[in-house]
Amino acid sequence: MSLEFTNDSPGLTDVPGFRVGAAGCDIRNKGLDRLDLTLVVADRPCVAAGVFTTNDVKAGPVRYSQTVLAASAERIRGIVGNSGNANACTAAQGDQDAAAMAQLAATAVGFPSDAFLVCSTGRIGELLPMTKVAEGIKVSAARLTRDAAEGVRSANAILTSDTRPKSCSARFTWEGKVVTVAGIAKGAGMIEPNMATMLAFVCTDAAASPAELKTALKSASDQSFNCVSVDGDMSTNDTVLLLASGAAGVAVGASAPAALRALFQEALDQVCFALAEKIVGDGEKITKVVSVEIEGARSRADAEKIARAIGNSLLVKSSWFGEDPNWGRLADAAGYARTGLDETKLDIFYDDVPAVLGGRPLPENKPRWKQVVQAARFAVRLKLNLGDAKFRLLAADLTDGYVNYNKSE
Amino acid sequence: MSLEFTNDSPGLTDVPGFRVGAAGCDIRNKGLDRLDLTLVVADRPCVAAGVFTTNDVKAGPVRYSQTVLAASAERIRGIVGNSGNANACTAAQGDQDAAAMAQLAATAVGFPSDAFLVCSTGRIGELLPMTKVAEGIKVSAARLTRDAAEGVRSANAILTSDTRPKSCSARFTWEGKVVTVAGIAKGAGMIEPNMATMLAFVCTDAAASPAELKTALKSASDQSFNCVSVDGDMSTNDTVLLLASGAAGVAVGASAPAALRALFQEALDQVCFALAEKIVGDGEKITKVVSVEIEGARSRADAEKIARAIGNSLLVKSSWFGEDPNWGRLADAAGYARTGLDETKLDIFYDDVPAVLGGRPLPENKPRWKQVVQAARFAVRLKLNLGDAKFRLLAADLTDGYVNYNKSE
Repeated sequence: MSLEFTNDSPGLTDVPGFRVGAAGCDIRNKGLDRLDLTLVVADRPCVAAGVFTTNDVKAGPVRYSQTVLAASAERIRGIVGNSGNANACTAAQGDQDAAAMAQLAATAVGFPSDAFLVCSTGRIGELLPMTKVAEGIKVSAARLTRDAAEGVRSANAILTSDTRPKSCSARFTWEGKVVTVAGIAKGAGMIEPNMATMLAFVCTDAAASPAELKTALKSASDQSFNCVSVDGDMSTNDTVLLLASGAAGVAVGASAPAALRALFQEALDQVCFALAEKIVGDGEKITKVVSVEIEGARSRADAEKIARAIGNSLLVKSSWFGEDPNWGRLADAAGYARTGLDETKLDIFYDDVPAVLGGRPLPENKPRWKQVVQAARFAVRLKLNLGDAKFRLLAADLTDGYVNYNKSE
Repeated sequence: MSLEFTNDSPGLTDVPGFRVGAAGCDIRNKGLDRLDLTLVVADRPCVAAGVFTTNDVKAGPVRYSQTVLAASAERIRGIVGNSGNANACTAAQGDQDAAAMAQLAATAVGFPSDAFLVCSTGRIGELLPMTKVAEGIKVSAARLTRDAAEGVRSANAILTSDTRPKSCSARFTWEGKVVTVAGIAKGAGMIEPNMATMLAFVCTDAAASPAELKTALKSASDQSFNCVSVDGDMSTNDTVLLLASGAAGVAVGASAPAALRALFQEALDQVCFALAEKIVGDGEKITKVVSVEIEGARSRADAEKIARAIGNSLLVKSSWFGEDPNWGRLADAAGYARTGLDETKLDIFYDDVPAVLGGRPLPENKPRWKQVVQAARFAVRLKLNLGDAKFRLLAADLTDGYVNYNKSE
């Protein structure tokens, strides 16, 4: 019954019944060497769920996938994804191109046209080069396999300015049957060259209804993808998809024993959290991953507001880059989150070293907390002492490299 | 009756009946050459109003000044301000030190102790060096004068990482009597070395009640100081103060003729807006001032949300730095303000050059809009075509210099 987690696994090919193929079709106009298209295909119809950007401006593939899930979430056969072009801010043609990608993928593998979900990431405001995309889909379809090497190629094909592929797998056994959950992702705060986008594809051979799957994915996302921040810019294309084939013969939904449901949720949570952590750790030109931990808030919403104010403050992020334990900026950002913070009750820690207790600075600890911020990963913890709620945000520093990387196309 | 506006005036010494003095008292431990303390003193009791940071974490001087204004807004005799230390996050001792500054100032010029307002800006989390501050107040008091040169020294004494003093004056004549409004300010997004703070002191010889003055100042601030952003970090110390001596013999409050009230408001608006514009233009290591103009929103609040999302987006600000007309990032940030934007109605302009109309990109205009973003000042305009409301935010770019300047103490 215990859970086995594998970091940096080959990814989706770890799940029995799923095949992947990847191709380079030169969407970026920079040659065919770079992988930029991938297909994920299930051997049998899957139940699927998605979590999408809440941006008012949604890319064509986001709108398309949402429509497909609303109509046919129980007969999904796969995902077609590309990097290099986000197909966002492309008006009606963008919607047509997203639908055409799904149609091309379905035709290539012999499934109905409403069986594919579509994801794009990259430059925005430009039309997809559909001739190239069609060729990429054809090549990817011809390569479909469960070989681990193709799993890695697939994880690479969705990357933009990420420096490495992101994948992991979790596996557990229930009554002699093995259930696998595996995922791949690409990062946030990355620009190719125009837009930050986070994509994650998670597949499993467990069985569940669309509603059950959506609940499980929402819960996992809230604890992972929604708790990370690189630069605070939410994309037009952010998408997390979960496909469940049921091939393992293990139903994990509402009628399943509580222990099994918990096991599946834990597997999904671990996969999503590991992918989210990889996204922050590979944030664009970052040098630090900082866990912003807010405790003792009146509500989770208050704790989240404070964590995001800190995690998105230019002054705070610049000081992390400089390894400067600048707790004053933490207190300032916490204050302008305007949750009704009581400064006289505020404790601030770097890892376990107190810098402020009850609103009073402890300058004598400075040598110790200066040590903490030298590390590539550390925590800043604010105890508000107002209640029991908490929130944790994984954030990154802001570097001169980020600004220079993003200053032009 | 016409209004005469003078940019870069000597500042507060332009107003008859106000004297200023400034001193260097080495609050930064870097020698006495740098001015870091100033007194502003009125020859007769003033009515005063203030607008303060809404940060939950308020500095000692902010709390002190708010208390004084609540109790004795009709008998204010002046302001004592310092740079180099914000007296913020300094617990009970900070409150005592702020009160002591007011007491020292009052004693030095022979007024009651509740006659002075107090402002501090600079490093946070450290106690004020009160012996030095006391000496600075004594020296400043001895220098009190209406000489223009001292006015300039006073404007310099409140600066932190600003590169130049900020001052302006407006003057009008009503029934043969001259009314003057003059102000000085220090900038936002500036760190000395720990905290962004905006301070502005405005003096006039017009007469008004505390409530009238507060209304006038609130209105002027909402159109000026509250419409600028350098880095989105709100300080613990932000303060705008307005002192009205009545010495000109012109009452500008509710009982005044509408034309006179309008004239005074216009003078105050011009002074506040010019100071706010100087603050953005001298934002830390910035290279561009960009007017973010949102039109056709359903409400002013919606327009403001979108303007702030754009003005505080790291990706947008980085692209301004790179003179990259990246309208996709504008659309993305506008979308994640989540006001119910309709992408198919959205128009985007650089100055007057359309980049997007009705959600459709106009790539043929790219050479023209690339030209616009070369300038040190330009506008990005989003027409939402959903209503009649609008908001304008003056914002700055984000540079590698900002990050490197702020990465350590």
